[in-house]
Amino acid sequence: MFVSDCLEANEQNHLTIGGLDVTELAAEYKTPLYVLDEETIHRNCKLYTDSMAQFYDGNGLVLYASKACCTMTLCKLIASEGMGLDVVSGGELYTAKKAGFPMERVYFHGNNKTRPELELALSCGVGQIVVDNRDELLLINELWGNAGKRADILFRIKPGIDAHTHDFIMTGQIDSKFGVALETGEAMEIIKEAASLPHVQVVGVHCHIGSQIFDLEPFCTAAEVMVNFMADVHDALGLTLTRLNLGGGFGIPYTPQDDPIPYNAYMQAVSRVVKETAASRMLPLPYILMEPGRSIVASAGITLYTVGNIKEIPGIRHYLSVDGGMCDNPRYMLYEAEYDFVIANRCTDPKTATYTIAGKCCESGDLLGENIPLQQAQRGDILAVLATGAYNYSMASNYNRIPKPAMVMVKDGKSRVIVKRETYEDIVRNDCE
Amino acid sequence: MFVSDCLEANEQNHLTIGGLDVTELAAEYKTPLYVLDEETIHRNCKLYTDSMAQFYDGNGLVLYASKACCTMTLCKLIASEGMGLDVVSGGELYTAKKAGFPMERVYFHGNNKTRPELELALSCGVGQIVVDNRDELLLINELWGNAGKRADILFRIKPGIDAHTHDFIMTGQIDSKFGVALETGEAMEIIKEAASLPHVQVVGVHCHIGSQIFDLEPFCTAAEVMVNFMADVHDALGLTLTRLNLGGGFGIPYTPQDDPIPYNAYMQAVSRVVKETAASRMLPLPYILMEPGRSIVASAGITLYTVGNIKEIPGIRHYLSVDGGMCDNPRYMLYEAEYDFVIANRCTDPKTATYTIAGKCCESGDLLGENIPLQQAQRGDILAVLATGAYNYSMASNYNRIPKPAMVMVKDGKSRVIVKRETYEDIVRNDCE
Repeated sequence: MFVSDCLEANEQNHLTIGGLDVTELAAEYKTPLYVLDEETIHRNCKLYTDSMAQFYDGNGLVLYASKACCTMTLCKLIASEGMGLDVVSGGELYTAKKAGFPMERVYFHGNNKTRPELELALSCGVGQIVVDNRDELLLINELWGNAGKRADILFRIKPGIDAHTHDFIMTGQIDSKFGVALETGEAMEIIKEAASLPHVQVVGVHCHIGSQIFDLEPFCTAAEVMVNFMADVHDALGLTLTRLNLGGGFGIPYTPQDDPIPYNAYMQAVSRVVKETAASRMLPLPYILMEPGRSIVASAGITLYTVGNIKEIPGIRHYLSVDGGMCDNPRYMLYEAEYDFVIANRCTDPKTATYTIAGKCCESGDLLGENIPLQQAQRGDILAVLATGAYNYSMASNYNRIPKPAMVMVKDGKSRVIVKRETYEDIVRNDCE
Repeated sequence: MFVSDCLEANEQNHLTIGGLDVTELAAEYKTPLYVLDEETIHRNCKLYTDSMAQFYDGNGLVLYASKACCTMTLCKLIASEGMGLDVVSGGELYTAKKAGFPMERVYFHGNNKTRPELELALSCGVGQIVVDNRDELLLINELWGNAGKRADILFRIKPGIDAHTHDFIMTGQIDSKFGVALETGEAMEIIKEAASLPHVQVVGVHCHIGSQIFDLEPFCTAAEVMVNFMADVHDALGLTLTRLNLGGGFGIPYTPQDDPIPYNAYMQAVSRVVKETAASRMLPLPYILMEPGRSIVASAGITLYTVGNIKEIPGIRHYLSVDGGMCDNPRYMLYEAEYDFVIANRCTDPKTATYTIAGKCCESGDLLGENIPLQQAQRGDILAVLATGAYNYSMASNYNRIPKPAMVMVKDGKSRVIVKRETYEDIVRNDCE
């Protein structure tokens, strides 16, 4: 009935998440409120790890791309699944370390890692660095060398495939700030140089072809290109790369119209391509890494708001204002991202009304969606925005000095705060008197 | 030479702000770094207040729209100028209160003020509430009544003028989440109702017609419409409104192409319209309020970044990555906002190169500008983005768990931190173990 499986309606016609009445969560923890269903996260993790076991003999590791939603609790949960972690900054790494995440299963990404970030990675003992460019390679060699260590590195490769939209394109040169290009020989050149450096060990290659992809073909094409490149590296340099990180980008259903690829179909198709290509090039089967972020947490999450004033502008539209907005979810402003909305306290009523959902920020563009089908609403209703587990909390700002919402995890019929609500005191904490 | 007057080049060919070498500021405080020039803020304040004195006999108050950049130090500075403050949330109000800002000079805005925010305003003794809608009116009457007090209120009016672009349009109904419409009679109706309530005192009306406006005409038209409406209110209800808040929206130069209205020209033209219209309608001259935000602080600010890797993609473009990005300045991603960029350590060199300025966030769209004319750059250079004093720090997020930069104020050849740099510990502070 709802776009995420953890959501149902109870006898009071209230929306539930993980079996808990969201109107009670809103009353207990106040709004705006991020809510995550732990069981959904576990299930999503298990779908990936089972898929890896079934179709690739478990010869790989699923990494959670923590930029989707990085908190200490989530890091612990991911660790408990036996998964790895993809971090893209010192802040995400710090969070993982503080949560006790096993550092050998951490992959450190980023197009412009700073020296302090790399020093943090070195001191934490991060397992793998996904190197973006030559300057970074040399800096890693220097830093790890100074410490008498050797860094396990992968290179971020632009495979010449771009699948940011439903279509995908192959270009000679990908226009991206990330990584080194394959076609120009840049990728081969940097691996050759890395192989000559004493304090790095090139263990593999990485690619990421886009976000929110609903099509198998670009993933398969990317896998084929990457395995062929690994074979080329072997042939040209006599160097056997053992790890193939195929990145993320798996689409999730934000609205009923979205039709994501089943995990198994992805893994089955990509495994076949990897195995066939490796066999045809006489390459040992690589250890595979996948980096789902959004598809682990998005569908596990909802955001609850209290409906404030409703403004009917005859002949134009009806504005429904909530007690959050672009500050806790900037995705509509940034990308015109679509979401499903539900009046949680009358959740199965027909959606006979149409509202533009406005935030409370002092900005005309502060909207969460326009012309949204919704139940007839009134002040005090609880509005749920669905599938907000990814890229909402992580992208939240304090615009207008609005504190960030709390985040609550539900599990086994119970709820607990996993990120405390910011206070006004938090907001001014770094202001000097 | 540069887009803001506080910026110059010194003998080392380094950019200076308020006379201080920005490369030294970057070395002392690290990057990314927001820097504000106090003298520029003072001068901007004085231009407004002098203008008000010269052309309107000082019969009004200039309010700083703190959403542009709200910190305790800025609140104190604005207070010292004898100005008022426009706050749009509990967080901005809390900051002002904590900074000791005189509450009688505070105007509280917002399209969806929450009950706790209004309770905070009541307990702080906020001088004026700019009421957005009927629900809010009734809630204020209830809350202030319970406290045995009466609230001074203004109403946010949609005057039927929209000047968000260089053109402006007049429509029968403005499509906005803010305020009550004039043409439909909604505005008159709500004032009539308010006049009957015991715990509010309607002291005036407010309008805001847009942002970054470079044209006098819409301001004059709005002033005329609003004074006529005040006269209509007097004629229809026998109620004399004494305050006219004309909002903000004054354009500032982000690039040399931008040509803002001189403050005096604005005040002179608008004063004439107000005086003429009031005289023709036999209305006492209203006390005028203006709400500049961006035009007080934007040109006083710069952001300093350290240049990281530079990626030449032949035939496509050159990416220059910095140690910040959409997390500290989301305006290019949100609005394709234009800025001037300067390599601060070779600031008068000709801009013979063209770069796309990329942030360090793990997102392709994380750019600060595309195809930017710039000095030839190399790793380690200090990149200054100009006129970032408004809507940069205030809109900053912790995307990728990147801590917010520090903010430094320069004055009389000295610098001091006014907002401390966030630490990783700040980032995880609200994470539960």
